[in-house]
Amino acid sequence: MAMSEIDAIRARLAAHPRPADLAARRARLDGLGADYVLPADVRVEATEAGGVTAEWTLTPAADPARVLLFLHGGGYVSGSLASHRHMVAEAGRQAGARTLALAYRLAPEHPFPAALEDALAGYRALLALGIAPGAIALAGESAGGGLALATLARLRAAGAPMPGCLWCSSPWVDLALTGASLTTRDAVDPLIHRDYLAELAEAYLQGTDPRDPLVSPLYADLAGLPPTLIQVGSAETLLDDAVRLAGAAAAADVPVTLEAWPHMIHAWHLFHPDLREGRASLASAGAFIRAHLEPRARA
Amino acid sequence: MAMSEIDAIRARLAAHPRPADLAARRARLDGLGADYVLPADVRVEATEAGGVTAEWTLTPAADPARVLLFLHGGGYVSGSLASHRHMVAEAGRQAGARTLALAYRLAPEHPFPAALEDALAGYRALLALGIAPGAIALAGESAGGGLALATLARLRAAGAPMPGCLWCSSPWVDLALTGASLTTRDAVDPLIHRDYLAELAEAYLQGTDPRDPLVSPLYADLAGLPPTLIQVGSAETLLDDAVRLAGAAAAADVPVTLEAWPHMIHAWHLFHPDLREGRASLASAGAFIRAHLEPRARA
Repeated sequence: MAMSEIDAIRARLAAHPRPADLAARRARLDGLGADYVLPADVRVEATEAGGVTAEWTLTPAADPARVLLFLHGGGYVSGSLASHRHMVAEAGRQAGARTLALAYRLAPEHPFPAALEDALAGYRALLALGIAPGAIALAGESAGGGLALATLARLRAAGAPMPGCLWCSSPWVDLALTGASLTTRDAVDPLIHRDYLAELAEAYLQGTDPRDPLVSPLYADLAGLPPTLIQVGSAETLLDDAVRLAGAAAAADVPVTLEAWPHMIHAWHLFHPDLREGRASLASAGAFIRAHLEPRARA
Repeated sequence: MAMSEIDAIRARLAAHPRPADLAARRARLDGLGADYVLPADVRVEATEAGGVTAEWTLTPAADPARVLLFLHGGGYVSGSLASHRHMVAEAGRQAGARTLALAYRLAPEHPFPAALEDALAGYRALLALGIAPGAIALAGESAGGGLALATLARLRAAGAPMPGCLWCSSPWVDLALTGASLTTRDAVDPLIHRDYLAELAEAYLQGTDPRDPLVSPLYADLAGLPPTLIQVGSAETLLDDAVRLAGAAAAADVPVTLEAWPHMIHAWHLFHPDLREGRASLASAGAFIRAHLEPRARA
């Protein structure tokens, strides 16, 4: 019997385990993205946004007045424009929007709040370009999901306008590591384990309280968030981060949708060229974003 | 400023509080449905299904080969074909399916497992009519949501085929009443409070353990459930039943979607003629069902 797509991806990951060395870790995640050829119809343009290195992608049918602002995963210490380009471009295609991916500063060289400041700068740069807030979908994967939520908490506190919607995939929102699924899903998750998360949290926090709502938005007041889609795989140690986030958002009167995808692993969207559920998840996120963004940006 | 639609509904409910007398309670819920005029294009046909009093509804564009099997709410002691007819008919329209609503037996006259036996009989009657299991959407509201889950647990244990999908709105799945939102949402929920739930549970259980998975499917093994949509309002004491159910289903590798609807009250779909969010919730459930049912039943 042929191996399932997700099992083939598991086998590939097992054959290339995460190295201990930081530079090698970063190269491994970047290489994962570079393994996928970008479709020929994707236009990529290097840019900067509020001083942050960034990148536009555009697919032919996308409305350039709508922007998907993307914050990659990698535990605040790795991940880049290169690692996630193919996934962001496809998300933009499904959402019918231009994408702006941010190369926010990484730990341990740049601990909290560097990444948050960069994410805020990126969002404000879009507003400065005349993009209507309601025409922006903020999105983040894994640590990028937590970062997206922290960004919204800061924007709200500043009285800045919210984006049209929020999309988090496999979000990491509790750096205090209190989710039961860190234990109950440990045996089925091929990527994310407690020791690794503790190491990442230490690199990013460098003394900040792990329950600070700006690093662990599970503990934030989520009232006022825009319509929010949370996607998570059932084979993730971070399953409970997603479920608890959905519960907290619901209790704060946020219009929130949680999608649990059976047998999917952390950040499975990255493997979408080889994974039907990756494509289906991007299509679902795209439909959510299309439904929640303003039709037109300000002139 | 005009009162919001949901506040107008709250005012109407407050003006007609739930009576203590059982017959009066049943009449009140039936009257709520009777207050809404059924659209002229809904065809209603009385029937029986496996010995259970039941009712078909059909709207013009619906595919009669697809069936939405509906289990009404009312805490196992009230609710009827009359109370939910307008809501079930509209759900069927949105789902593009014929509906079969079941008048399962009610407590305290008929405690557990009478309602469960009737729900099983109704499902098996559809199979006996030649409806493909994959062309059936099982649905339940409030107690009916718990009943739908118990029905699937029993079907699975019997090796019977699962329906194509499951839709639960405001599900009550924990008769042990352990959800934190029973307290945290008590002040905002105009309908459902702990004392009332305890009374309902007693009438239905009559000695059965409230943690029996067939009365409280939150404690059931949910593995093998079909694609499941859970909808809940944020102004519900039962919010945590829905969130915990989503978490348990996800952990059991069920493809599950949770939608939290801000400021909506228990069973808000019932008020859909007066409530935009009621109509939007039915449209969302309908889209979910359309996406998950087989295109054609067996000949």
